[in-house]
Formats: sequence, structure tokens, C-alpha cells
Amino acid sequence: MKILFILSGGLDSATALYDLRREHEVVEAVTFDYAQRHRKEIACAVKICETLNLPHRVIDISNLNELLQGSSLTSNSIDTPHGHYEEENMKQTIVPNRNAIFINVAAGYAISKGVHGLGLGVHAGDHFIYPDCRPDFIEAQQKTLSLANDVDFRLHTPFLNVSKTGIVARGNELKVPFEQTWTCYEGGARPCTKCGSCNERIEAFMKNGLIDPLYSREEWEKLSAIV
Amino acid sequence: MKILFILSGGLDSATALYDLRREHEVVEAVTFDYAQRHRKEIACAVKICETLNLPHRVIDISNLNELLQGSSLTSNSIDTPHGHYEEENMKQTIVPNRNAIFINVAAGYAISKGVHGLGLGVHAGDHFIYPDCRPDFIEAQQKTLSLANDVDFRLHTPFLNVSKTGIVARGNELKVPFEQTWTCYEGGARPCTKCGSCNERIEAFMKNGLIDPLYSREEWEKLSAIV
Repeated sequence: MKILFILSGGLDSATALYDLRREHEVVEAVTFDYAQRHRKEIACAVKICETLNLPHRVIDISNLNELLQGSSLTSNSIDTPHGHYEEENMKQTIVPNRNAIFINVAAGYAISKGVHGLGLGVHAGDHFIYPDCRPDFIEAQQKTLSLANDVDFRLHTPFLNVSKTGIVARGNELKVPFEQTWTCYEGGARPCTKCGSCNERIEAFMKNGLIDPLYSREEWEKLSAIV
Repeated sequence: MKILFILSGGLDSATALYDLRREHEVVEAVTFDYAQRHRKEIACAVKICETLNLPHRVIDISNLNELLQGSSLTSNSIDTPHGHYEEENMKQTIVPNRNAIFINVAAGYAISKGVHGLGLGVHAGDHFIYPDCRPDFIEAQQKTLSLANDVDFRLHTPFLNVSKTGIVARGNELKVPFEQTWTCYEGGARPCTKCGSCNERIEAFMKNGLIDPLYSREEWEKLSAIV
């Protein structure tokens, strides 16, 4: 089946892309520029698609940034919280209706190309904090898109019930170039190692007995001593 | 209840706005600039809000225009079809997933303002051709928005099962300034009187025994002789 893919440039969506390409014809990947603090992920998405020789398009919705306030991901005045995703302060990273907006814009683009499927990398670890990553949302959104366009529209989410640790294991099998992916919520040149997103990634590699290629062996040993 | 309102600048949404204001606190109206051929409706939306002394914001998603092709509303290379909505050629006016995109962006904005309701002017006459104006879509979309944001989100659509003729009757009761609304799909200075949108409006006024203030009495008599 032909599908369009929403690639953030992060580890989850890169691995979901590699996974879905085995069974589907991914015609193009799209990445949203929503003026996120961690814009570095956009450059990562470009690189991943170059590696795969896959057409890629950045969809610029950065002018919606001023509408979708209240999140540390889109507001420079709100600090990126440190810690783990299970903590209350992580709610600061919620951008109102973000995934639904991405999915709906990408679906409109897909349908105008005659493509009735969309792949994305939402995963089980996001469920606790982000309602728009939960299975009941994905199911309702798929039904709504089908009704809105009078087609049988499908959302392909191979990791909907897979943890970050499971995704790293799968990506390792599929030889995903993890060094080309970006996960940190801060906009720095190097991962901050302190935000929820960094913590989750580091732990997932450790649980798999792997070294995250974003770090040198020395850095990794230091992180191992802390985690 | 506090609600945000999606105002196109057309007759349906203007009347829905007047209607909903009687029971709800409309905090702001938003109008989408999607590089539509009939951009004149945006200026109408501005005027309607000035009349009501209601905060108004134009949300510019015109850069998505190149993604949402295949419709005469957004592609200059496709002619606006003439005739009635029941006809096959009217499908040329469908913009893929348009209403769903509007609703999702506006809902994100509403939620970031702490507002969990959204009003819009979809009406029964649109059902035949536009799937994203049908009751089952609206119901599914409302549920999806609630799940996506972990809130009880409501879509307020007073005309979901009301015909254009019924809307003109209601607008007449509510003293909606019909002369400030724009309906024609063409981008001209005056209504073309030939597109599906013009035809439906003209007939609705005639069935109510009213003169559409967009026309002079002389013009109206000429139209009456044709319809």
C-alpha cells in the first residue's frame, strides 16, 4: 500500500519509517517545522531521507507557533523540564492538539496525491503524558479522517504499543542510522542528557546493552555511572 | 460556555455566529487564509467582527495551499464549476481534508486559551458534496479532539441539519448584516451568480421572499426571471 510518512527526525519515527518500508511503498516523508525549540531534528530528517533516497518535504507551519502556546517545546519563555516522563512537570512539553494538526495536514496532502495511508512513529512510552499518542486517539482519528474524505484512510503506527527499549531493539535489527536521529528537546549542539526525552533514549540503549552513537565511549561510561 | 468561532465570512458562518452568541460567550473569531480564490470573504469576516466588536484573528495557512491541490478553490488552473451542488462537477470544489484542518488548528488555539468549545457554520446543504460537513464526521471529530487533548471538547454547529433557506430565515430574524457576507466562489468584485455557491444563496433568499442585499432591486428582478 502507498503511504506518506510523518518523520520528525527522532529515533522513533526514523525506526518506524525503516519498519514500514519493508511492507509498504512509502512515497514521501514530511517533517513539520512548527518553530520547535529542537529544530535540529529537521536537519536530521533531511539526512535520513537522503540516506534512504526518499523524497522529503518540510511543511512550514511555524506561523502557527504563536497560536499553540503554553508548551516548552514552542515557547522560549518556558524552560524545558528535566527528569522523567512520568513526572507532572513533563506536561509543560504538551503542545495543544499538535499530533492531530500534523496528522490532518499530512492526510490532506496525502489525499491530494491519491495516497490513503499515513505512517507515524507514536509509541507506548508517550501514552502516559501525551493524549494524542494513545491508541484510542489514533483509532478515532483514523475513523474521522475516513469520514472527512469519504475514503478508507489508514494510520500506520507500528510502535503504538512498543516501548522505547523495544524500538531501539527493532532499529538495531533494521540497521537504522541512530547517529542521524535527534531526540533532545533542548536546541543545543549536543544532547542535554537531562530532559525527559534524553533520559528515555539513554535508558533504552542501556537496556539493550547498546551504546548510543550520539555519545563517545567515554561520555557513555560517565552516563552509565549516573543512570 | 466559552467558545471560539471559525468565521469564513460567508452567510452560513456569520448567521451561526449571531445564533451562538445568544447562548455562549464567543471569545474570539478566527478566519483561515488558505489562499482561496475567494479571498474577499476574509475582508467580510473582518467587517462582521468589527460590527460585533468581537476580537478576530486571521490564521494564515496559505503556504499549505501547494499541498492541498486538486480543487478549484485553491488551484487557479481549475475553473470554478457553474451549476448546482447536486451536480458531479461540483466535486472540483473539494479541498482535501479542509474542514478537518481548520477545526484542528482552531481547536489547538482554543485549548491553548483554555477554551474547550468551537463554533462553526457547516450546514445541511453541504452534506451531499462535502463529506467533512456531515453529521457523522462532526461527531467523530468532536470525539477525536476530546481524546487528543484529554478534555471534553465540543463542536457547536447550530445549522448541521438546517438548509440554506432555513439559515437565511434565521439570519433575517437575528438581523445578520447579510450585505457584509460573501458567498461566491469566484474572486470577482461582484457575485458571479453562476457558481453553486451563488445559486444556492440566491434561491435561499427567493424562497424566503427576501431580496439579497448584495444585489440592487433591478439586478434581483433580472435574477428572479432566470431562477
